Amino acid sequence: MKLWDKGISIDKQIEKFTVGNDRELDMHLAKYDIQASTAHAKMLGKVGILEVQEVDLLVSELELLNQQLENGEFQIEEEFEDVHSKIEYELTSKLGDTGKKIHTARSRNDQVLVAQQLYFKENLLEISGKTMNLIDVLLNLAEEHKEKLLPGYTHLQVAMPSSFGLWFSAYAELLIDDLYLLDAGLKIVDQNPLGSAAGYGSSFPIDRESTTRELGFATQKYNVVAAQMSRGKCERTVTSNISSLANTLSRFAMDICLYMSQNFDFITFPDELTTGSSIMPHKKNPDVFELVRGKCNKLQAIANEMILITNNLPSGYHRDFQLIKENSIYAVENIKEVLDVFTYSISKIIVKNIDITDEKYKYLFTVDSINELVIGGKSFRDAYQIIGEQVQSDTYEATKGMQHTHSGSKDNLSLNMIRTKLQQL
Amino acid sequence: MKLWDKGISIDKQIEKFTVGNDRELDMHLAKYDIQASTAHAKMLGKVGILEVQEVDLLVSELELLNQQLENGEFQIEEEFEDVHSKIEYELTSKLGDTGKKIHTARSRNDQVLVAQQLYFKENLLEISGKTMNLIDVLLNLAEEHKEKLLPGYTHLQVAMPSSFGLWFSAYAELLIDDLYLLDAGLKIVDQNPLGSAAGYGSSFPIDRESTTRELGFATQKYNVVAAQMSRGKCERTVTSNISSLANTLSRFAMDICLYMSQNFDFITFPDELTTGSSIMPHKKNPDVFELVRGKCNKLQAIANEMILITNNLPSGYHRDFQLIKENSIYAVENIKEVLDVFTYSISKIIVKNIDITDEKYKYLFTVDSINELVIGGKSFRDAYQIIGEQVQSDTYEATKGMQHTHSGSKDNLSLNMIRTKLQQL
Amino acid sequence: MKLWDKGISIDKQIEKFTVGNDRELDMHLAKYDIQASTAHAKMLGKVGILEVQEVDLLVSELELLNQQLENGEFQIEEEFEDVHSKIEYELTSKLGDTGKKIHTARSRNDQVLVAQQLYFKENLLEISGKTMNLIDVLLNLAEEHKEKLLPGYTHLQVAMPSSFGLWFSAYAELLIDDLYLLDAGLKIVDQNPLGSAAGYGSSFPIDRESTTRELGFATQKYNVVAAQMSRGKCERTVTSNISSLANTLSRFAMDICLYMSQNFDFITFPDELTTGSSIMPHKKNPDVFELVRGKCNKLQAIANEMILITNNLPSGYHRDFQLIKENSIYAVENIKEVLDVFTYSISKIIVKNIDITDEKYKYLFTVDSINELVIGGKSFRDAYQIIGEQVQSDTYEATKGMQHTHSGSKDNLSLNMIRTKLQQL
Amino acid sequence: MKLWDKGISIDKQIEKFTVGNDRELDMHLAKYDIQASTAHAKMLGKVGILEVQEVDLLVSELELLNQQLENGEFQIEEEFEDVHSKIEYELTSKLGDTGKKIHTARSRNDQVLVAQQLYFKENLLEISGKTMNLIDVLLNLAEEHKEKLLPGYTHLQVAMPSSFGLWFSAYAELLIDDLYLLDAGLKIVDQNPLGSAAGYGSSFPIDRESTTRELGFATQKYNVVAAQMSRGKCERTVTSNISSLANTLSRFAMDICLYMSQNFDFITFPDELTTGSSIMPHKKNPDVFELVRGKCNKLQAIANEMILITNNLPSGYHRDFQLIKENSIYAVENIKEVLDVFTYSISKIIVKNIDITDEKYKYLFTVDSINELVIGGKSFRDAYQIIGEQVQSDTYEATKGMQHTHSGSKDNLSLNMIRTKLQQL
Repeated sequence: MKLWDKGISIDKQIEKFTVGNDRELDMHLAKYDIQASTAHAKMLGKVGILEVQEVDLLVSELELLNQQLENGEFQIEEEFEDVHSKIEYELTSKLGDTGKKIHTARSRNDQVLVAQQLYFKENLLEISGKTMNLIDVLLNLAEEHKEKLLPGYTHLQVAMPSSFGLWFSAYAELLIDDLYLLDAGLKIVDQNPLGSAAGYGSSFPIDRESTTRELGFATQKYNVVAAQMSRGKCERTVTSNISSLANTLSRFAMDICLYMSQNFDFITFPDELTTGSSIMPHKKNPDVFELVRGKCNKLQAIANEMILITNNLPSGYHRDFQLIKENSIYAVENIKEVLDVFTYSISKIIVKNIDITDEKYKYLFTVDSINELVIGGKSFRDAYQIIGEQVQSDTYEATKGMQHTHSGSKDNLSLNMIRTKLQQL
Repeated sequence: MKLWDKGISIDKQIEKFTVGNDRELDMHLAKYDIQASTAHAKMLGKVGILEVQEVDLLVSELELLNQQLENGEFQIEEEFEDVHSKIEYELTSKLGDTGKKIHTARSRNDQVLVAQQLYFKENLLEISGKTMNLIDVLLNLAEEHKEKLLPGYTHLQVAMPSSFGLWFSAYAELLIDDLYLLDAGLKIVDQNPLGSAAGYGSSFPIDRESTTRELGFATQKYNVVAAQMSRGKCERTVTSNISSLANTLSRFAMDICLYMSQNFDFITFPDELTTGSSIMPHKKNPDVFELVRGKCNKLQAIANEMILITNNLPSGYHRDFQLIKENSIYAVENIKEVLDVFTYSISKIIVKNIDITDEKYKYLFTVDSINELVIGGKSFRDAYQIIGEQVQSDTYEATKGMQHTHSGSKDNLSLNMIRTKLQQL
Repeated sequence: MKLWDKGISIDKQIEKFTVGNDRELDMHLAKYDIQASTAHAKMLGKVGILEVQEVDLLVSELELLNQQLENGEFQIEEEFEDVHSKIEYELTSKLGDTGKKIHTARSRNDQVLVAQQLYFKENLLEISGKTMNLIDVLLNLAEEHKEKLLPGYTHLQVAMPSSFGLWFSAYAELLIDDLYLLDAGLKIVDQNPLGSAAGYGSSFPIDRESTTRELGFATQKYNVVAAQMSRGKCERTVTSNISSLANTLSRFAMDICLYMSQNFDFITFPDELTTGSSIMPHKKNPDVFELVRGKCNKLQAIANEMILITNNLPSGYHRDFQLIKENSIYAVENIKEVLDVFTYSISKIIVKNIDITDEKYKYLFTVDSINELVIGGKSFRDAYQIIGEQVQSDTYEATKGMQHTHSGSKDNLSLNMIRTKLQQL
Repeated sequence: MKLWDKGISIDKQIEKFTVGNDRELDMHLAKYDIQASTAHAKMLGKVGILEVQEVDLLVSELELLNQQLENGEFQIEEEFEDVHSKIEYELTSKLGDTGKKIHTARSRNDQVLVAQQLYFKENLLEISGKTMNLIDVLLNLAEEHKEKLLPGYTHLQVAMPSSFGLWFSAYAELLIDDLYLLDAGLKIVDQNPLGSAAGYGSSFPIDRESTTRELGFATQKYNVVAAQMSRGKCERTVTSNISSLANTLSRFAMDICLYMSQNFDFITFPDELTTGSSIMPHKKNPDVFELVRGKCNKLQAIANEMILITNNLPSGYHRDFQLIKENSIYAVENIKEVLDVFTYSISKIIVKNIDITDEKYKYLFTVDSINELVIGGKSFRDAYQIIGEQVQSDTYEATKGMQHTHSGSKDNLSLNMIRTKLQQL
């Protein structure tokens, strides 16, 4: 059953091609379509398009559907092309003419838009929450391991002394940046599009302010054409912001995979977080973190995919937009899973004791040695020359144990300042 | 002359390969390196690493360089690999040992970082300003042309009545969303990285709070490893936010190119904004808007390019990061140019009178006709059925002139509400 | 059951995270794993690692599994992480020790590799076949509609006379280019990787030449490290070549959507290939072609996604590669569906009669007018000037009916030459 | 001076915006525009549009310009928007009316197309040649270092024994795959587009077969609309094929950077191929290979950028295509530079002696140990179990020195077979 069916039979293959996996995806949106339909019905009552008792009937029927959904009893059967057809069918088969009236003054377009935006809104908050939780775990790990030295690399070459405290809290502070972006995304989706209908508004005297309040949106997307064009913009923004978070996690995962290599041997994980090989019995592979990395890289690709789909399309709805619904829901659901797995796994990390006196790390301290000379009166450039010559002639002896006192350095992590930043959000 | 030169000659081709076009790009950063070097010198004085008179000498020498820059007399000659070498060379050749001391407690890494972030900060503000200006122009155009009808399309098919007022102000309201993202970008770059040195801090007792205040940063990137990893994150964020703005402009330009086609014939531009053909003397091609579209699409590609370059690299600086400096400066400079050209050109738009009674537009009003029946008592689904049959049997007569009263619709643009949104920023 | 299980329980969420949707995807590879396992068993017999009767048992058991697969009775149950575990389990549970021997001298890595490459090989041939079929349909449409004029556009502006014959056969000739790329892809996947084991070969005296012949590969990937690195390269190449084909189809679909707009009104399709609207009863939307366009754009994004996942990873297998299996299978299966739907739908196209004398098309013929003057003795530049002035002063009268005689022009389509090109493939 | 100038002044900023950096880029195309103009003039003579002496004059004037170009005396001055205007201006100012006639029966569109395709054709051959040269260097290095063991990794974990011979020749064999793609690209650009004019052919009786032969194209793009649509397709194909080559080199560079880390310490390079640090006097950074990696990653991004620019544009030329000229020329010129630098640098590689008996490598040989048990009669799965238990209980003793005899393994590199593959190209 398709609501726009004009009595003409459509070839089955074409139907499969056009419907795609909408039924499956739309299960994520059902809750929000029910919310928005409820708000829409109430508003129609308020402006006199529906009678009070019609509104009551619609609202209780929608409440019933919501209960089905919460109990896991709601499903979108094969005969419906999407969740919106399904819900409207339920209302109509229960309430007859009253059910048919729910679609007054709206279109499939603004119905999808508002459900998506409510979904994004709730999920962006959830993703931010999970990110804050991960930041907390990382700051605790930084505190716990702050005394443990770690070689610092540039160009993958041994460079200067770092520490596990610095490493863990660096990612914590970078994740705060990602929260700024998620917050901007929230502002963009927190604008009610309901009432834009097919993108050009309605000739009914609807009250968009009322649905805005009812649904808890911060404001409206006033212009109805702008509201319709939010389709695409919201998905791209949300996905692009998730992508930034994914980028941070991906890089962290790369560090982890590298540091677990026998050639670094800085960290390890309990057996249940590593994987074996079908032919090599000794393997403890960091599959979980490789998949975090890979999945995060996939997430970073989605924003580009969405631009490719929507780019150069003139204004007004095109069916192509159906395809990016999948992308954005994929991005939201996956980043949540990645955050859960990452937070759990990183909390199990085993930090090893690194023998920093090993021959290969001896040049870690050349900058400290130079600084000692400078404090003793040499210019930086001259001190650099002297230590450089010692290195060249293999007479260099490492100066160990210099404290780094400034904010954010290995001996002064300033974790409280990072926590303050987080709290200011 | 390369500062890290260890007296070993390097093949010319390799040098060209490694230096690239840094000299040219770095002209955009010169101003900010001078600012940051000045703040660094003052801080070194404050903590006692430099004498007061050394600081004074360095500061006035840097002031001189800044004047040269403003007078267009500053240049980075062939013998320098970048602006940082050039400036340090100038200080050293003028001040001898004192000049050599400027590099104390910093590295090329945090020097580049801080200059880039200052550049981004100033430019994000400028881009936001230009965007606000464009929004203003569009809101005025919307006001001016609010009575003029425009066919609204979905799927490129004639759909429902729209107006030039809706069209212009739709893009205005969408651009506000882009401002939210630019603002989040600003938060991310507005964190002082100076003092992170090569990414692992310094053993000198530097005062990072002091340079933060001096340079007007809102806060520090505390963790020095995080500061170093901002390299890449800042560029990606700024470019990705610019990309969102570019997406809005690109779509607008597509509308313009389409609406100028003889088959639409909704708008035109004065001759000086169109281009001819080498073989067709009648052509008035919308090259300016095609290039806006193309350049904006290019801008949308850059974020992906940067991810491709930096993805899967473990933490710590890699030379690859040099390559994304070009991308981010390109993005910043180009979006400013596009905004200028777009704002100028759109202000010259000539809006035509569209004959909405033309046969091809007659179904624009079917939804209004349905709504009339609904207001007269039919359910929406039944009214849809009736009008649908009239369309099928070619007996449909358009209902024109229904007013759309709700907020954001063609007869109630709510421009003041959009202006309020903008002011709240 | 996981083959490498070392008796350590693994958290369920982690398992779901690592296994992903491999079971579903692997149904596409089952047939090829059976083929490759059969060839591997025979080879092990040939070099004396397996007894003749062991080989016979394995081969008939694999044949049985293949029959199950063809009858739709084969499935990968929840307890298996992929098709390879499932098949090995079946062999072991039926044949005991003999079943266990099938994994001798191979690894999961080359097992996946060889199955994927066989899958790609067969599918590239199928995709090429479907493309040739579409080319044939288009050349027939070109022949059928060769007399019908179509305005030619540049910059979306009316430019010069074109024809439906040119339009249909243009896409036919462009699709031949895509066949060249598919063919190069075929060369790359048609190289046996079996025997590379985990990427470093095997200490068993295996005979890779034998499996190469048995599996019908054109050659081997000789170097075992290269064979392993084909993982990623094959997927990227196949997908990138499919992307080129998708690009051609996407552009074609854009033309179709535009030409169906009431403002062009050049073509239409029967009702069963168009879609209605939930609020506008008059709509005949080109959803099928919008989805062709969107899906083709999605296909064009995949190559980039794969690069993002695999980029900057050093040589040697990483688990991240599991994630691009999904992408490449998605690309293969989708392009086949798109080709089917496109070929069917384009064959139903209804070409309208365009009134080329309409005012908006009058400048279509200015170049022909110039050429008449040139043939009459003027230089091109002077003739251009003259006609240009007529256009400016609105005195231009179109010169219609000039024949274009050269190869590939509207009055000489050279379809036979295009057919010859195709046959030379 | 713009040829299509209709006497209307155009704002300077707009001009800068539209012309972009065409003058600089077009220097790469000058040679090919001269070739194509010569062929075009000769053809115009052949079909009687030009007199014999006119053809002679044009041809010698073009020859003169070609000599200027070869002597470095040719330049495109500020007053020309591109190379095509410049060349036509030269002909006209020297030959008067005869010069004006060169543009008969062609358009700027096919003029750019043919020059680009000739440029691509010559350069694809050059790139293939440079790649073959690199393959040769790598096969020689493989031969030279074939006895030297290298740990093989999977998941960055020590896995199985590999060798420098395998490592070098793996990349050689993978580069052959890239040659297949370059070859397909060559087929696509080797089709004459000249005569398609603005994309809809010409009403002059031109002879496209004649210019095809004169310019050495393998065939024509017959359909003129297809010829015009090659704009975009050629650039994307060439760039996408270069991208595949870049992917191979990028991964090789990543290996090199990793293997130079003190934690691997497998290889190094002479000082002139490494770079120091402004603060760490001991640094020998692999900047050359980091830039190879970064530049190759940039090259991989370009195909996506081009799709973003051209996607969803209907058929017919749009000015946006001007912007991808830059991308494709950038790709061509850069890959040549990268190939030169890479080939030179890799030939200077210093292979170290790796102490394979080091504790961290002891599990390299577990698979060989299993295989020994299997050869002694155990099933693979049982042998795996036994060695696995030895590893768990830390009683495992490595089995060293097993020969790998099959084709493409560390002790049987099959370099001659790889050479044969290369020769078959």
